[in-house]
Amino acid sequence: MKLQFALDRVDAKTALQMVARVYDVVDIVEVGTPMILREGMHPVRMIKEKYPALMVLADTKIIDAGSIESADAFEAGADIVTVLAFAQDATIRAVVKTARDLGKQVMADMVCVEDVAGRAVELDGMDVDYICLHTAIDVQNTGKTPFDELALVKTVVKNAGTVAAGGINFNTISLAKKYNPDIVVVGTALTGAADIRAAAQKMIRTIRE
Amino acid sequence: MKLQFALDRVDAKTALQMVARVYDVVDIVEVGTPMILREGMHPVRMIKEKYPALMVLADTKIIDAGSIESADAFEAGADIVTVLAFAQDATIRAVVKTARDLGKQVMADMVCVEDVAGRAVELDGMDVDYICLHTAIDVQNTGKTPFDELALVKTVVKNAGTVAAGGINFNTISLAKKYNPDIVVVGTALTGAADIRAAAQKMIRTIRE
Repeated sequence: MKLQFALDRVDAKTALQMVARVYDVVDIVEVGTPMILREGMHPVRMIKEKYPALMVLADTKIIDAGSIESADAFEAGADIVTVLAFAQDATIRAVVKTARDLGKQVMADMVCVEDVAGRAVELDGMDVDYICLHTAIDVQNTGKTPFDELALVKTVVKNAGTVAAGGINFNTISLAKKYNPDIVVVGTALTGAADIRAAAQKMIRTIRE
Repeated sequence: MKLQFALDRVDAKTALQMVARVYDVVDIVEVGTPMILREGMHPVRMIKEKYPALMVLADTKIIDAGSIESADAFEAGADIVTVLAFAQDATIRAVVKTARDLGKQVMADMVCVEDVAGRAVELDGMDVDYICLHTAIDVQNTGKTPFDELALVKTVVKNAGTVAAGGINFNTISLAKKYNPDIVVVGTALTGAADIRAAAQKMIRTIRE
């Protein structure tokens, strides 16, 4: 299981300082949607220029204009972009084609999808690299977690990797271990830690022990 | 009917040059999603600082983190933000509340929604200012237009304004006149024009004559 470190609510300068502490600990750094809305691809470019060997995901949540938007993110240095799972199939296919042409990867985000198993089968057939079960920030206070849906999707997917995201912290990381996605996404549990490097190392030990 | 001029595939500098040509012709300038993904809120800030009286829409297509993302866009100078219509109701409500607190507006984008009439009634009940019928770029080559759905939504909505978007040009603007949304969104038909000011003036005359 890989650890994806999500940077959502920090500015580009703080993000770069945080990445400097964990670039050799975490597997993937995510430039989150709120940061992209504020600063575009600039943080992606900055992080990738400083740490070219680090896998960078741009959480673009593409819903349309799949070729243009994914190409821009890949050009800025993203290794993985995200597309919303309920986008038109034409959009999913455009993002996947752009990724294949450039040797990059695509993660489909299942946020707000109701029939996760049905859509997962379709996404798998469209050759997305990862399917992300994602509990929206705005409903995390309901106690919802992505793990039941993750278990369901794992039973129907043949090729795509699986990802769990949404409020995962040191209390719920044991569920990630139990359900065993290919990637687990952790954000504020790390960005809010007093010692971000020690927290990331502890998280890595927990998922790999 | 108002004319919303969408800037999608240009850089911030070009966008500012285009806005300089039409700021006193069009009703709303849209900083489109592809531009936001590349440059964040910088184009919104630049346009609003130079043209404070001009209505600026940030096509943020929010799907989660409604409060944070809308507040960031409003803070940068946006008068209107967009939220995806199939976002969780909690997200829609968070964006609307943020807008109300700041005296700003919210447009819900119906792209990829199947039951447009049913969702339009719910969005109207959640007090969104505008409901946008939007043919995705990635399916415009199928000949799909937003006007049938616009006509349907107009029969069920009580308070929200309606908006038509998606590949509208000088050939299809007559349909906009016929179906009469509160706002019509035009992008490449203007950004691709040899004389962008003359084209915008012609479009305005067409919808208002």
